[in-house]
Amino acid sequence: MFLDFYFMKIALKEAFIAFHKNEIPIGAVITYQNMVIAKAHNLTETLCNITAHAEILVLNLASNYFKKKYIKKCTLYVTLEPCVMCAGALFWSQIGRVVCGASNSSKRGFLYSGIKLHPQTEFVSGIMKNQCKNLIQEFFFYKRIYKKKRKFI
Amino acid sequence: MFLDFYFMKIALKEAFIAFHKNEIPIGAVITYQNMVIAKAHNLTETLCNITAHAEILVLNLASNYFKKKYIKKCTLYVTLEPCVMCAGALFWSQIGRVVCGASNSSKRGFLYSGIKLHPQTEFVSGIMKNQCKNLIQEFFFYKRIYKKKRKFI
Repeated sequence: MFLDFYFMKIALKEAFIAFHKNEIPIGAVITYQNMVIAKAHNLTETLCNITAHAEILVLNLASNYFKKKYIKKCTLYVTLEPCVMCAGALFWSQIGRVVCGASNSSKRGFLYSGIKLHPQTEFVSGIMKNQCKNLIQEFFFYKRIYKKKRKFI
Repeated sequence: MFLDFYFMKIALKEAFIAFHKNEIPIGAVITYQNMVIAKAHNLTETLCNITAHAEILVLNLASNYFKKKYIKKCTLYVTLEPCVMCAGALFWSQIGRVVCGASNSSKRGFLYSGIKLHPQTEFVSGIMKNQCKNLIQEFFFYKRIYKKKRKFI
């Protein structure tokens, strides 16, 4: 449990980096034997690429690290519940454990869509959920203010 | 309808290239104003990467071509019904039209999983379905023979 908080904090730091790049602040980390082997944050706007979600980027890094398709003994820490695309990717990767922070209140979260992870994948949710959620809410709050300001200029 | 067959043939050629690389033979093409702007085939084994499905690779190429996240006026031709991950990616891309060949008989097809594409996306299925299906069946037939042969060596 202590380790889960520790690694989620690192994922949250990644989310902060995304925030400062004007990206929806989502961060992800993959660990193996309690060591961080990959970390990434959402880069969809920067790369003009809808597949550049934090989870997909971090999965690519981890596959590259092991030169293997399957990362069964790894754990993913991600600040927001994965979307359908990312849950599909996590299924194929056969990852051992997925720990997520805030749950996804939109209809694109994988739990809402009824998607299942791999039968061998353990799923934990709610680690540092308030911090993860607040960061995303703050991002959209500033987005709205910026939009309103632009109307008056 | 004629154009659908024409572009599906190009996707099928991509699938043949995958076949000769010992990859599950799935190919994909994206068109814009009846011109091919991107084509790709499955490279999961070659790249040791579970996200390297033909659809994901071709979406990346198309995003790169337009330097845009959304490709609303494009059509995707793919030889097999997309999986959950790829359907999730297609949703985010807001692609205008998806044409697929064979339907996915495994439980990982997006239709079986109840995933919906973007409301603006038109979906057509069954174009050259026999050719697309036969290629995949042939691939797994040879895979099985090779496995059996290895047992006797």
